[in-house]
Amino acid sequence: MLAPLTPSPRIRRSPFFDATVADGVASFSVYNHMYMPTGFGDPAGEYRRLIEGVSMWDVACERQVELEGPDAGRLAQILCPRKLGGMKIGQGWYVPICDHAGTLLNDPILLKLADDRYWLSIADSQLRFWASAVAAERGLDVRVTEPDASPLAVQGPKAVDVVAALFGDSVRSMGYFRFRETELDGIPLVLQRSGWSKQGGFELYLRDGSRGTELWDKVKAAGRPFGIAPGCPNGTERIESGLLSWGGDTDWETNPFEVRMGKYVDLDAPDDTVGIQALRRIAANGARRHQMGIALDHGEPLPLQDRRPKVFSGATMAGRMTANAFSPRLGINIGLALLGTGAGPGDAVTVELDDGRRVAGEVRDLPFL
Amino acid sequence: MLAPLTPSPRIRRSPFFDATVADGVASFSVYNHMYMPTGFGDPAGEYRRLIEGVSMWDVACERQVELEGPDAGRLAQILCPRKLGGMKIGQGWYVPICDHAGTLLNDPILLKLADDRYWLSIADSQLRFWASAVAAERGLDVRVTEPDASPLAVQGPKAVDVVAALFGDSVRSMGYFRFRETELDGIPLVLQRSGWSKQGGFELYLRDGSRGTELWDKVKAAGRPFGIAPGCPNGTERIESGLLSWGGDTDWETNPFEVRMGKYVDLDAPDDTVGIQALRRIAANGARRHQMGIALDHGEPLPLQDRRPKVFSGATMAGRMTANAFSPRLGINIGLALLGTGAGPGDAVTVELDDGRRVAGEVRDLPFL
Repeated sequence: MLAPLTPSPRIRRSPFFDATVADGVASFSVYNHMYMPTGFGDPAGEYRRLIEGVSMWDVACERQVELEGPDAGRLAQILCPRKLGGMKIGQGWYVPICDHAGTLLNDPILLKLADDRYWLSIADSQLRFWASAVAAERGLDVRVTEPDASPLAVQGPKAVDVVAALFGDSVRSMGYFRFRETELDGIPLVLQRSGWSKQGGFELYLRDGSRGTELWDKVKAAGRPFGIAPGCPNGTERIESGLLSWGGDTDWETNPFEVRMGKYVDLDAPDDTVGIQALRRIAANGARRHQMGIALDHGEPLPLQDRRPKVFSGATMAGRMTANAFSPRLGINIGLALLGTGAGPGDAVTVELDDGRRVAGEVRDLPFL
Repeated sequence: MLAPLTPSPRIRRSPFFDATVADGVASFSVYNHMYMPTGFGDPAGEYRRLIEGVSMWDVACERQVELEGPDAGRLAQILCPRKLGGMKIGQGWYVPICDHAGTLLNDPILLKLADDRYWLSIADSQLRFWASAVAAERGLDVRVTEPDASPLAVQGPKAVDVVAALFGDSVRSMGYFRFRETELDGIPLVLQRSGWSKQGGFELYLRDGSRGTELWDKVKAAGRPFGIAPGCPNGTERIESGLLSWGGDTDWETNPFEVRMGKYVDLDAPDDTVGIQALRRIAANGARRHQMGIALDHGEPLPLQDRRPKVFSGATMAGRMTANAFSPRLGINIGLALLGTGAGPGDAVTVELDDGRRVAGEVRDLPFL
């Protein structure tokens, strides 16, 4: 199913929207109430450039929730069940955000811009509601807002060369998730070593929404010698690499331990951290499910299954497949699944596809690659 | 712009999805992380049936947030700056939900199903996050969940005949927003006199997501003598009627007084109601903006402007137009706008369209019809 999407003032355009249209964007999804490009008509080329070259993505829909004021650091710690005490200005940390029952509400990158200013760079859920409710209910002195900050991602092994051509060779030594506030020919930016792929790269958070086309064109020009072309968050590469899609891979019972985020939970986080008591209980009892890979026995590329197909181990339902793709590098269909902990690597399973067909598969450890 | 929409497991299908596909759905939007049909290929006929006959809509994306438990009523009152003391089981009330600064977060219908069970039937924002944060932070004994409840709307002057054919003539005397828990040939439902149009009608909240096609087909069969056909929430009729689209007509500074919801705010609501202090201040100082209509001087139907065009009064920016449509009944282009209170009915304004053209117009009171 690839259906026409009607415009609506409810759904915002990215600062890079016009530039992506000029560059032939072929389809969209909706993410955080914004249009997100999902392809430029050349899926094989877009995948290849991400794996071997360099790709540029309009990910403005990865919105920021800004915490600003004397209690910003305190609010960040209350929201994140990961000890933030050692966090330095200029660092970004991957954090789970949970409700009071330990259910995962989002999996943002937390950026510390100043002692009194943090950003949560969010997945597709309205974390602003959550953060502002908790801040106000606890009487904290902090403002929760959405700043004018729209990421443009440059991803792939040659991304560093493109970004070095724009910002100088010092970017080559930036650590992962490190960022700096900077500018490009007067365009205000936050430059971070990050992005939703495992191929390396940077995100340029545009700080002036009126200058999207200008930034897009500068990145494109700098990338030309390296074969850059527009792409988008790549559903195939992210499954190969085992990156999480909140809301796609998760449901309303998913806790961080189930989706391989346990290493970002500190059980000795302060007692007033939202969800920490529940997370301690879950950790003590052991998670009920875990996210695993599935290698599917099917000769040709399967279409995206978007109804969370059931996964069976014999006659027993073991869980659901939450995403799938044909991996060009592995030459097989692969998927992500949320399975009961009884199902482990090497187990034979059957997946009931959206159209009712059944396909055999094998449970695999993540990442695939 | 009518762009292809890619499928994603992040975006859920409605229980009526298959039925709408079988009936030729032509396009979608995304609303509350679900696909929402936006047309069946016959806009003129869909409008006419809504105004003169009867139309059926998949509005499963109008999700419910259930408050359930001993403190459900207390939480409802804390969330709603409208005094709920007189509310009876079986009533639905239109309520603003605001943050602590009085900013509108959603404009749901609150349904009282029991003394300890309420639903918020929501517009396009994650009110579940808001409600569950406030509930937990206040230590209330209440569960905040999403029930299996997916509305199918039957709208138009003949809707009552269709619904009477299904449920009996007693539905004819149901008051507006009144509802009852019932069933149709064993399909569990909540039946409410409601819907996002001013043409009259009902919403059938399907309580078993596996039976969507069955319910759709029963409504279609009962409606056949009355000329029913599938439609969708109608952007033209709702502008004519002055119905609010949260997120479309509102921004991050909109309070209820600005968008004609002041009559649903009780300034003497309990002091522990979220936002009530801010709303009292805003009411005392007077709102800065107000939602008005604009009649546009333009001979032919204008396309939907989805970038919130600027509205000028002389050389001064008066506000933004948030929605527009060509009204078949009025024979003119009309729009909704959030304007400074300096601009009032009869004022001449100029609207700068998305493509840069300028169109003259006149400010009008709402509703248009």
